[in-house]
Amino acid sequence: INVAVGPVAVFGASNFPLAFSVAGGDTASALAAGCPVIVKGHPAHPGTGELVARAIASAVQSSGLPAGVFSYLPGDTNALGGALVADPRVKAVGFTGSRGGGLALMKIAAERDEPIPVYAEMSSINPVILFPAALAARAKDLGAAYVQSLTMGAGQFCTNPGLVIAVEGPDLDTFVAAAGEALTGSAALTMLTPGIHEAYEKGVEALAGHTAVRTVARGVANTGPNQAIGAVFETDAASFLADRALGHEVFGSSSVVVRCKDLGEVGHVIASLEGQLTATVQIDEGDAEAAAGIVPIIAGRVGRILANGWPTGVEVSHAMVHGGPFPATSDGRTTSVGTLAIYRFLRPVSYQNLPQAMLPVALRDGNPWDIARRVDGVREASAR
Amino acid sequence: INVAVGPVAVFGASNFPLAFSVAGGDTASALAAGCPVIVKGHPAHPGTGELVARAIASAVQSSGLPAGVFSYLPGDTNALGGALVADPRVKAVGFTGSRGGGLALMKIAAERDEPIPVYAEMSSINPVILFPAALAARAKDLGAAYVQSLTMGAGQFCTNPGLVIAVEGPDLDTFVAAAGEALTGSAALTMLTPGIHEAYEKGVEALAGHTAVRTVARGVANTGPNQAIGAVFETDAASFLADRALGHEVFGSSSVVVRCKDLGEVGHVIASLEGQLTATVQIDEGDAEAAAGIVPIIAGRVGRILANGWPTGVEVSHAMVHGGPFPATSDGRTTSVGTLAIYRFLRPVSYQNLPQAMLPVALRDGNPWDIARRVDGVREASAR
Repeated sequence: INVAVGPVAVFGASNFPLAFSVAGGDTASALAAGCPVIVKGHPAHPGTGELVARAIASAVQSSGLPAGVFSYLPGDTNALGGALVADPRVKAVGFTGSRGGGLALMKIAAERDEPIPVYAEMSSINPVILFPAALAARAKDLGAAYVQSLTMGAGQFCTNPGLVIAVEGPDLDTFVAAAGEALTGSAALTMLTPGIHEAYEKGVEALAGHTAVRTVARGVANTGPNQAIGAVFETDAASFLADRALGHEVFGSSSVVVRCKDLGEVGHVIASLEGQLTATVQIDEGDAEAAAGIVPIIAGRVGRILANGWPTGVEVSHAMVHGGPFPATSDGRTTSVGTLAIYRFLRPVSYQNLPQAMLPVALRDGNPWDIARRVDGVREASAR
Repeated sequence: INVAVGPVAVFGASNFPLAFSVAGGDTASALAAGCPVIVKGHPAHPGTGELVARAIASAVQSSGLPAGVFSYLPGDTNALGGALVADPRVKAVGFTGSRGGGLALMKIAAERDEPIPVYAEMSSINPVILFPAALAARAKDLGAAYVQSLTMGAGQFCTNPGLVIAVEGPDLDTFVAAAGEALTGSAALTMLTPGIHEAYEKGVEALAGHTAVRTVARGVANTGPNQAIGAVFETDAASFLADRALGHEVFGSSSVVVRCKDLGEVGHVIASLEGQLTATVQIDEGDAEAAAGIVPIIAGRVGRILANGWPTGVEVSHAMVHGGPFPATSDGRTTSVGTLAIYRFLRPVSYQNLPQAMLPVALRDGNPWDIARRVDGVREASAR
């Protein structure tokens, strides 16, 4: 049977003040596992954090749970978060944020007398691969849909499509032109914090000034502070393969199109990528053969592979994997979204030969909870 | 669907040259997960290791698998093992051995550019709790059975009963006397290596010379090198709680009986323990109430809890958990023995909206492999 690992420290995401912060996915899955939760409040939304924390505290009280089930630590220093992860009473950490932040917490956790797991969701550029037949059939529509996914929420989704990979030719030209046209009519949106905006501006400037990169289009400026003006760039596969910096995440509505000579080069570009949360393939029937060779390479690098859609939009479901090999996350064996997320905060305990009355109810004869179980290796009949 | 994490480095155990070394549980579960395996041969059994490695290499060839599926690296330096764990191509590590060795590999793995999981099974003293009614009913038999479990294989099992916890009184006196009598007639056995023997002698000497510890009995000397002469000690709970060193593992047939004033003190002693592979309770019907309060404390500290048996003896089965909280293992969320062991070397990938032909067979409509699956949250009918 699975039991709770113990108290969990949760570091909320700046980009989802509700869905992935104080009462977000990490908190929900840790509580569901039976673990007390201590949330380190994100300084980007202290008011929202406080309101949500009070709502949870009130729910804990009205449900008759012990008060220690949930705690909230607002604060804007790294030292506070570090002390939380270093505390010997904490047994696991959930984090969503930057690569630097995640790596720092992983280091603290690994150096404890008792090392603990850190589930950090860090960075991903979510490649989109346009296969030839799909591109031939709907290059223009794909270009427009790409920019819509890219600029949604000022591009501040973990699964934002930051990289497009395709074979060069007139169809890709059509796609790029359509994307450029769509972006030119796309108004800038306000980013979450000045810090995020500053990092975005720096990242876009670096790409715009890169000798091997051409700026396809920029979005339209808007009034107000911290505006993310969208940016689409393009480069060739050889340049991309020669400079790893071109594959680094620019958090926000910035994306790079990589033009490849042939499908072999598409494979090389994919194989050069670090671990990613998602990869998207745009395919038609005529792409079956080409995709058969490339899909397995993709699957080796991502937590989720999707066809003929866009990666933004993450459903909370049984089949969801919002995870992926390092550095997309610190631990690619897990997901932070979906029902599988609970397993991050559980560990198995085997009960051998105990009297019925001392067994957890879930393990007793007759399957009182009617759960899916195996007895002596054979699955029991169960409604679930 | 779950996919292989990539190449796995396996460090075999000295104490199971067959079941947990070159072709042991770690190798089997990594290969079953689809991961290539590189075994670092244990210097305590180079000949056996070589023979087994050749057998696997021959099986790989006759099965038509790629030669890279299995590699064997014999050698007796720490540098070799360190280089293996540091190699960027290695994606996970399985280790069975000392706490020092496991911690060293964990450190190397955490400091890589891409940190990887280390599954290290390290140390455990496997407490046995004697409840009052069971002790009253069968103190003498329990004492004899305890020494049999303790001295089996010169005490070189990971699950060797190194600690006994019980409430003091005439029944415990009977148990201790019976254990002493059994041990006095028990001949020493040869240990696996001079190093293990030396560490055992040092550990036994430290306990024998401890002011708060009484030597109950020693086994009988035998001829030949590296003989483990069994040792049973006793101390009181207050002394045990005051000196953590009394709870450290002495690998071999050495064990400490802790005399408690009452059941409350039994609970304190258990609560003071580090993570363990197993805990054993000896209980009769009259112990139900006492056990109800203590079993949950035990479950919080172990990977397996068993009643009215002895911890030595680990079955490869679905229900086995040969794991436990740190420092019993580096990662209490897993097991190194049993079918669950495969999950250490897998990570989930979500396939969204892909055409049937591009899906892994296990995910296709109609469930071609007839495996246990959920579709839209509902479990499919399946023979397994």
